[in-house]
Amino acid sequence: MLPMFTRPALTGIVDALPATIPFVGPEALERRSGTALTLRLGANESLFGASPRVVAAMQQAALESQLYGDPEGFALREALARHHGVTVDHIVLGAGIDELFGVLAQAYLEHGEIAVMSAGAYPTFAYQIRGHGGLIHTTPYRDFRNDPEALAELARRVGAKLLYLSNPDNPTGSHLTAAEQQALLDRLPGNCLFVLDEAYAEFAPAGALPDLASDDPRVIRFRTFSKAHGLAGMRVGYALGEPALVRPFDRIRNQFGVGRVTQAAALAALEDQEFVARVVAETAAGKRDYAELAERHGFGALDSATNFVAIDVGSAERARGILQRLLESEGVFIRMPGVAPLDRCIRVTVGRPEDRRRFADAFSRVVAAL
Amino acid sequence: MLPMFTRPALTGIVDALPATIPFVGPEALERRSGTALTLRLGANESLFGASPRVVAAMQQAALESQLYGDPEGFALREALARHHGVTVDHIVLGAGIDELFGVLAQAYLEHGEIAVMSAGAYPTFAYQIRGHGGLIHTTPYRDFRNDPEALAELARRVGAKLLYLSNPDNPTGSHLTAAEQQALLDRLPGNCLFVLDEAYAEFAPAGALPDLASDDPRVIRFRTFSKAHGLAGMRVGYALGEPALVRPFDRIRNQFGVGRVTQAAALAALEDQEFVARVVAETAAGKRDYAELAERHGFGALDSATNFVAIDVGSAERARGILQRLLESEGVFIRMPGVAPLDRCIRVTVGRPEDRRRFADAFSRVVAAL
Repeated sequence: MLPMFTRPALTGIVDALPATIPFVGPEALERRSGTALTLRLGANESLFGASPRVVAAMQQAALESQLYGDPEGFALREALARHHGVTVDHIVLGAGIDELFGVLAQAYLEHGEIAVMSAGAYPTFAYQIRGHGGLIHTTPYRDFRNDPEALAELARRVGAKLLYLSNPDNPTGSHLTAAEQQALLDRLPGNCLFVLDEAYAEFAPAGALPDLASDDPRVIRFRTFSKAHGLAGMRVGYALGEPALVRPFDRIRNQFGVGRVTQAAALAALEDQEFVARVVAETAAGKRDYAELAERHGFGALDSATNFVAIDVGSAERARGILQRLLESEGVFIRMPGVAPLDRCIRVTVGRPEDRRRFADAFSRVVAAL
Repeated sequence: MLPMFTRPALTGIVDALPATIPFVGPEALERRSGTALTLRLGANESLFGASPRVVAAMQQAALESQLYGDPEGFALREALARHHGVTVDHIVLGAGIDELFGVLAQAYLEHGEIAVMSAGAYPTFAYQIRGHGGLIHTTPYRDFRNDPEALAELARRVGAKLLYLSNPDNPTGSHLTAAEQQALLDRLPGNCLFVLDEAYAEFAPAGALPDLASDDPRVIRFRTFSKAHGLAGMRVGYALGEPALVRPFDRIRNQFGVGRVTQAAALAALEDQEFVARVVAETAAGKRDYAELAERHGFGALDSATNFVAIDVGSAERARGILQRLLESEGVFIRMPGVAPLDRCIRVTVGRPEDRRRFADAFSRVVAAL
């Protein structure tokens, strides 16, 4: 007699996770509403696109799409090593920072171990931690900034294994100075890793990126080609840290996960720093536009070290109303933080001048109608 | 006083994993030897490339590389659902089957739970299982075929949670019939999931793919665009199964992991079934060429239901010698299974007619020099 078949059980961890997906993309919004969006300013995608040289590199590499990319990503890692003044062994590639957070959790977090972050900070970090059986403890933002003392104190109190900081910060756009980050690092408890998410590094003002020793065993930095380089749709980022910290990722990472066309794109993007500088300069102009727009309507725009601006519209209710009307009446996609007190803000990606004009018009109509 | 900083510890699982990477890509071989390969026949990449329509779709989508792909991959899942006669809820996309094996392990394997497979079967499955704390138990191939009775018996004996079968099989190219797979399924112990890797499905002869009910809670199938569709470098595959089995992947998968250009490529590839049919026909011709080549040298070629041929050269020593000389003297990259008795074989991807002629010449020179 064969035993009856019983359905395979999910792990206890995955079984306990919420079944709904926290990531509603603009395409899902379009499917729900049945109308196409006219302006995507919600995901901090670079509306300036990728450099024409990068597009050409991708179009050329598309002719070799049948070949796996180099699983070691050697040429790209070599270029990144030169760019950062480190060795190839300091760098691990991944299919975006999001994937690398999963690898980080898999490598360093035993089930039930704790990661600390600000309440309302980048949700995908928490998502990956929880998916790998870790726990999240949070401390509030303070004046729309991460609070380094509170983060370090919380990490110490709960015995955290990871301390997450997005700098420059998403979703506020604020930043901590290099000195503040160094002070945080010096207060870090033993056996706790400083996870520094620098997705918006290219947009950061002078003094916002710490000059950390590349062999400091307390910190792993994460960078991406999704923002300033205009390659969100290609999936490539990297972890940068002491080889003893990051090389163990090679034992578990998806070896062929960064594809051939993507590697060619990232390599070309890294070589075109002039293009990045133009995007950063245009973005700075756009942030001034948004600040003026906010002011005209009696709102405050937070200073931003990123490619988006958080506009403080005074209340969560008003923020939700503006977001909803922008979507439904204007076909404009933006986002807002989900946690108080950040949820008094809407978060708007800086687009090209024509995108900004269209946003200003739509925003003005929506605010007038409130 | 602050406590002394101590280096963050890896998890016990990752700490115990081997530090060396089992995946040596052709680019690494080129770096070691200092010479460029002239022929890549080792990774079962499709040398027929992607369809011209797919290349055009990628080149067009490259102009939107700054935008994230739809995290739900809805259009592609809809097309796949139509293709397979299932619903979109039966399908989960991933950055290749390799990534999905990791998600599978994360969803279904508690630490210390067991997966069963043939000794010498696809190493990345075992890699992902071990990386997530699972254990691998194996049973030998029998006459270069997976042994369904032994696999089911082993799964029952060790209380396996997953039973892995690659069908058509890598690295032998052999296949089990639909009836054999159905019989295996009927012997499957309760709470054990049948993990059916169909990466080479398009090349399979009639009767090799089981007509499984799409709502059978005992099986998850995995498919890829890396082989017949010529998109190994783009990273896209999918899991196909009962929604209750596969939808929990949404709780943990890398939501934006399948990029925009990749989704466009896969959608175009699925629509060009004529191209796939031509690749399959050309591959069949190539398999006959390889069989004749093997015979001319007194070797046996295993029947293949895939896009490669395993040539039994009689001994592991000779197989290693041929592989080594092909690489060093001819710049030709092939692979061979690492486990006896399969390691009497070399494994050669079917290329275009010109690739096959060049391989035949190189192989003949190498064998003559042995």
